[in-house]
Amino acid sequence: MVTQTASQNTEIIDTRSDVRETGVAAGVDVYRTRLPHRGQIEPRPHNTVWGSMKNPGPLSPPELRRYAERGYHTEPKVLSPEDIETCLGEVTAITERLGDDDRVIREPSSGDVRSLFAVHRLSEAIAEIVNRESIRGVAEQILDDEVTIHQSRVNLKPGFAGGPFYWHSDFETWHAEDGMPAPRALSVSLALTPNLSTNGPLMIIPGSHRRFVSCVGETPDDYHRESLTSYRPPFGTPEEEDVRALADELGIDTITGPAGSALYFDSNCLHASGGNITPYPRSNLFVVFNAKSNALQAPFGGTPPRPDHLAHR
Amino acid sequence: MVTQTASQNTEIIDTRSDVRETGVAAGVDVYRTRLPHRGQIEPRPHNTVWGSMKNPGPLSPPELRRYAERGYHTEPKVLSPEDIETCLGEVTAITERLGDDDRVIREPSSGDVRSLFAVHRLSEAIAEIVNRESIRGVAEQILDDEVTIHQSRVNLKPGFAGGPFYWHSDFETWHAEDGMPAPRALSVSLALTPNLSTNGPLMIIPGSHRRFVSCVGETPDDYHRESLTSYRPPFGTPEEEDVRALADELGIDTITGPAGSALYFDSNCLHASGGNITPYPRSNLFVVFNAKSNALQAPFGGTPPRPDHLAHR
Repeated sequence: MVTQTASQNTEIIDTRSDVRETGVAAGVDVYRTRLPHRGQIEPRPHNTVWGSMKNPGPLSPPELRRYAERGYHTEPKVLSPEDIETCLGEVTAITERLGDDDRVIREPSSGDVRSLFAVHRLSEAIAEIVNRESIRGVAEQILDDEVTIHQSRVNLKPGFAGGPFYWHSDFETWHAEDGMPAPRALSVSLALTPNLSTNGPLMIIPGSHRRFVSCVGETPDDYHRESLTSYRPPFGTPEEEDVRALADELGIDTITGPAGSALYFDSNCLHASGGNITPYPRSNLFVVFNAKSNALQAPFGGTPPRPDHLAHR
Repeated sequence: MVTQTASQNTEIIDTRSDVRETGVAAGVDVYRTRLPHRGQIEPRPHNTVWGSMKNPGPLSPPELRRYAERGYHTEPKVLSPEDIETCLGEVTAITERLGDDDRVIREPSSGDVRSLFAVHRLSEAIAEIVNRESIRGVAEQILDDEVTIHQSRVNLKPGFAGGPFYWHSDFETWHAEDGMPAPRALSVSLALTPNLSTNGPLMIIPGSHRRFVSCVGETPDDYHRESLTSYRPPFGTPEEEDVRALADELGIDTITGPAGSALYFDSNCLHASGGNITPYPRSNLFVVFNAKSNALQAPFGGTPPRPDHLAHR
């Protein structure tokens, strides 16, 4: 177990190569979660930017350093108006075609479409977009590796009816339920509509990606059917006291921006987004890139692997 | 029926004295609502600032003019830190004492206290605060009359669990369910905690107070028991198309500010507030002042009057 105290200004790197490479030290999982009781908030033994701050790619060394500190980077105009039209058109056509497919998640309150999963497999046009240098290239630069797509989806968050997404670390779920060994992964969220302060934008606790907040409770099999439609899932959700402690210490950043903007964020950032009762949908294309060297294993939480459209193997 | 087109820059005043004084023109209600079908968005035949822009009181003539245009006014530091401590202490003591009283409304999701009604009657300290010149005096100035308290409450909107309040005009409800003749009334919302962009602050459609948006549906008796605990009540809620039309035309203003700030807003503003999943409660003391000349009659929606703690007669 690593005992360094987390800090906002330095990277925390475990020097043991087995931990750095696999997330597992001498056979012991360093990201234990779904525990019977609340655990400590632990420092994260892995890097955020892998390789060095001089990795070649779209981001400058200062941008990489800032990403390592805060856990995220934003960039305007990554998608053109035509790209956005393509994405929204594809989503409408695909959800109409699929109907009640497992890849279509609906709002519990209204039945409106909340998310569509595996969009890069369902749409060649979306696959072309997410594989661009401005998107995949940033992931390869930060993770210093070839990357695979772990998951892709469009979150629609419709106007008047969009439900919140409660605080969570994506990596916590992907580790416990999908067997992702280490947080050598990141997400890119591409705004398909304006992300306003009022329509449920993403909130991130900056620097929280450097801690690991374990969650309480043994996860039932087939739990994903519940978790994807629940605003505050009972498992994979950090304790209120832990969220409060980190928010008090680190603050909360709200990510807003016009349609076409991109947010790149570490898989272990604590983040959330509120509901949307404005008339304006907050729709984002969301792609998760995982380092090839960080390939999925058996889920660390002990449940069977989730379906392929939630975690591509 | 008045046929003037609403405008952002001028006051709309019906010249017929019976309409101006009572809200009822020749025995016909000019604020018809709870209709079988969606109605038109009508201009409001009554003034927002009564008397003149030179009424004596805490606000300057430019502030009064701006209030007439936007429908609201904000002021920092209206409550001191000691006032805030008093209010929060009183609310805690009173809700503990009352337990399951009708005046205590709880969050459907968590059971946390959402609102406490009639606080100025339950607490002498709170009564003293709301009767100050900086609070009651502004209402008397804007309404150009002596005022009575129509309703008072504390909305707590607890951290992690605070539910949204969907779009509505308070006056629409007070007219239909309480028999308030005209929108010669205003609310003062006093921040007891910081109102942040992230913790479910009030959103107002500026200028919407100059229109009257009728709502659809015949209201059941005893409906208030449902409406106060519902995030999106089925009656007294404008149609999505109407909210969208007004938001597209007029925009949405978000009211944030430190604890102690005050928001004074017209009873007919379309407003809403999102849920709160941050750790930080958004708690406000809310007082409604009604002009003495605008005393409650029989409810215009045809239901029996609501209980006294919701509409003091």
